[in-house]
This record gives sequence, structure tokens and C-alpha cells, in this order.
Amino acid sequence: MSLAVATEIDPAVRAYVDEQLAALRDRVPDNRVTLVVFSGDLDRHLASLVIATGAAAMGLEVSIFYTFWGLSALKKASHLDGKSAKEKMFTLMTPGGLSTLPLSRLNFGGMGRAMLRSMMKEQEVASVEELFATARELGVKMIACTMSMDVMGITREELLDGVEVGGVATFLGDAARSRAAFFI
Amino acid sequence: MSLAVATEIDPAVRAYVDEQLAALRDRVPDNRVTLVVFSGDLDRHLASLVIATGAAAMGLEVSIFYTFWGLSALKKASHLDGKSAKEKMFTLMTPGGLSTLPLSRLNFGGMGRAMLRSMMKEQEVASVEELFATARELGVKMIACTMSMDVMGITREELLDGVEVGGVATFLGDAARSRAAFFI
Amino acid sequence: MSLAVATEIDPAVRAYVDEQLAALRDRVPDNRVTLVVFSGDLDRHLASLVIATGAAAMGLEVSIFYTFWGLSALKKASHLDGKSAKEKMFTLMTPGGLSTLPLSRLNFGGMGRAMLRSMMKEQEVASVEELFATARELGVKMIACTMSMDVMGITREELLDGVEVGGVATFLGDAARSRAAFFI
Repeated sequence: MSLAVATEIDPAVRAYVDEQLAALRDRVPDNRVTLVVFSGDLDRHLASLVIATGAAAMGLEVSIFYTFWGLSALKKASHLDGKSAKEKMFTLMTPGGLSTLPLSRLNFGGMGRAMLRSMMKEQEVASVEELFATARELGVKMIACTMSMDVMGITREELLDGVEVGGVATFLGDAARSRAAFFI
Repeated sequence: MSLAVATEIDPAVRAYVDEQLAALRDRVPDNRVTLVVFSGDLDRHLASLVIATGAAAMGLEVSIFYTFWGLSALKKASHLDGKSAKEKMFTLMTPGGLSTLPLSRLNFGGMGRAMLRSMMKEQEVASVEELFATARELGVKMIACTMSMDVMGITREELLDGVEVGGVATFLGDAARSRAAFFI
Repeated sequence: MSLAVATEIDPAVRAYVDEQLAALRDRVPDNRVTLVVFSGDLDRHLASLVIATGAAAMGLEVSIFYTFWGLSALKKASHLDGKSAKEKMFTLMTPGGLSTLPLSRLNFGGMGRAMLRSMMKEQEVASVEELFATARELGVKMIACTMSMDVMGITREELLDGVEVGGVATFLGDAARSRAAFFI
């Protein structure tokens, strides 16, 4: 139907319309949501994963950039071999993996975290690990910030398999084409 | 005038233009701003309400989603009846209402908060309660996150009248149609 | 070429297309990124400046609004003359300038900050001062929030030269025309 209509119209008119639209189209967002997770707090990671899985379930393309303290979520293990003294210290003092993230408030050395986790379970709300797995199943792209990796001395081997790496240009490329982008 | 022009043109041309535009229009944001307030800090609530009232005053549609610690702002009272031990503990340890929110920095057990409030008053800047009331008068939609309510054991009866409740799909529906969306 | 094509088409058709497009164009974002920096933490300022310089290098217009604790980054000096007792106290207890910002985590009275700075240097990552200077060279517009200045008793004389001042309407004007906007 649309092709039939299109073939009838004057090529000059179509060229004009297409030219005018092309200029706009480039700045109209894609069906995409981009998150940058800077925080290393369990509660903020939960929020980011609820948004990411929700958006992916609604058919939006989703990327999460993990930067600074947020990188902890992507760690499968912490290595000390071959690191400088300062890198070793940072490694030991930052959480390694989702299961060790503290709460931003009321953490009390892990007690608040345990309580929140238990309350989530009672309400049958997915845990942070389940949300993370669901996000990956739904095709949410997870990208580790290369600059943060360099500064904190985190190697690719310490990150979960299938995680991509990228810089600020990759992030901005996605964010600038998004319907919504959040710094978490 | 515009109708007069439109009636003169070839229906095939108009159909082509409309079809091309419809594809774009769906991804172009509405005159809307969406905020998600995750934090329970007085200063961040102030920032969110300044943005919300400013945007509403400029004629934008505004929604604020309150989630996690942010929910405290919507509480009119804290109930303990019928809650589990853990829910009671969370209830007692989280602020109930705007007037009890702490400052993210320099709070010093409330002294910093009192100081900030007094400095705002001296400068004739609206208080957080006034900004909240103004936001509601201007039609800012306030939505409590149902998942956070479930997890933290907060009931509808504890929330201010007129507050809506909604999940991540409601939030993303608004955010994806917004000119700007912020995670605060 | 495009002009040649355009002149051939029916003025009524062109008027219809232009009218339809004008309605859309107003809501399509410019090539612009807007940041609001609320935080006074060194690591969050680093993140904001990495995004800002990256976006500016990609040819996007960038504005950063500094509000609340974020204002510290724009201070060249702290003055006490003519301030009220409360304003003096706030002045003494908040950092004055980028070089004094603490880390949001692992600060340990400045030790973590020194460690992060030294790790950044070893990796040849630009310091926060270098990133700030680069941002200004690239034309990133830096705006101090007037309401925060009033509340915290910060005068124009305390701010770096070339910094603009503006309110929430200025901020929203930029944010609403942006491809991405972040609250940091």
C-alpha cells in the first residue's frame, strides 16, 4: 500500500520530503536506553537493573556502561598478580562481584544488606544476581569503561565473560541516540 | 490557512508525507520531563523539586517516580501494625516524610540540615515542603514505585493522599517520551 | 542540487511539508549534552568532565550546571568578608576549588584521593584540573546555579573567571534541547 502510493508521486516532491526528513531523522532518538552505573552500591545497582530489564522487556535496546566503583559488578574474580602496590590496595578495598556490594545506607557492615536481600526474597522480588542474569538474557549490552579499568588496574581477565569494553566515545554514541539516559 | 493549503495538494503526496512523518513522530519526545528520585537526602530532594517546579512552570508535563530511599518523601505517617520484624526495623530506621530527611553532607545529626533550612529562609528560597506543595499545585505527577513499597513493606495508607503508584513500565513509558529524564 | 529540486515542486506541497516538519522540529533535540553536577566528590567531577570533554570533542554543544556541593569546583577562592556566621561556617566546611574535592569512597582523610590521583598519573590519564581546563578550551559552557549561590552565600567574586551564572530556567532550556542530560 505505501509503495503503491509512493510510486504515484512526483520524484521531485519525494526528493524534497526525503531531504527535509533526513536532516531531522539523524537527531531523533532510536528505541534505546543507556545507563552509566558509576556507583558501587547494591541498591543503586538494583535500580539500574530494574530499569534495564524493564526497558529490554519493552523492546528497547539497552546498554549499561560500568565505570569507577560500578565496575565491581562486572568482576568475576580479583587478581593481585602483576599489580602495583596501589592497585593491589584498591583491589582489596573494593568489592569483587555483585554479591559483595554494600548498601548506600543502613549497611551496618553488611547487616542492612542481608536484611534487604531477605526482604526482597520474601516479596519474591528478583535478587541482584537474578536481575543481572535476566538483563544479559534479554540482550542488555554491558560495557566496562576502559579508562576506569586502566586507572584502577582492573584487567579483562577479572571481568565476567561476554562483557564488552569501551571508552567515553562508545558511551556517548549510545547515549546520544537514546530516548532516555541515566547516570546512576 | 494551513487547511486551505492542505486541501489543494495531491492526496498521494500528502499520504507519503504523513507516512514518513508518522515513523519519526513516534520517537520524538513530548514536552515532558521525568525524574526518578532514588535518594533519601534532603538536598537531592530539593534539587529534584526545583527542577520539577521549574519545568512545570515552563509548561512541561512532569512526573517524579519515588523509589527506594526516595519514597520517604511521600510518607505522611509510618505504621508498624501488621508489619514483619524486618519491615518494622526498616520503618523505624528510614525517615518518614519530607521534614525528617537528612542532608547528604555535613548533616551532623541534623545540625547541618537546620542550618541549610535557616539559610534558605534568610534568602527567601522556598522550603522543601513549600516546593513539594507547589509541585503538586502545578500538576507534577508523583508516583510511588510499587516494587520498592513491597520490598520495604510500605503500604498505600502510609503515603500522602493523591500520590499514584506504578511500576518500572509506567516510569519507562514516561521517561521514553521525555525531553530530559534524570536519576537523582 | 537540493535547491534545483526544490524549485521544481508545487509551493502548496512545500508549504504542507514545511508546516508538518516545523511541528516536529521543535521537539527534536539539538546536538547538545547537558550535565548538572550536584555532587562535591572528586570522582563524580572526574566522570562529569570525562563525559563533557568527550562530548565536546565529538562536536556536541555541552553545558555543565554546577549546583549545591558541585559549586565547589568553580571556586577560585573562599571569601569570609561580609558573610553571616552561618555562611562563614558553610564556606569553611565545604571544599574551595577542584584540588580540594574529596573522594566519595575510600577517601580516608585524603589518602584515597592522593592514591587515585597518583594512579591516574601513572596511567597518563588527565587530572581533574587538566580535564577542567580542556573542557573550557573545547568551549564547554560552565554555569553556576544562582539559587545555590544565594543559599550558600557564595559570591561571583569567589568563582573562576568566565563562569556564567543562571537559574533553573536556563538549565532546563538547555536540557530540554539535549540528546542526553545527566544528573551527577
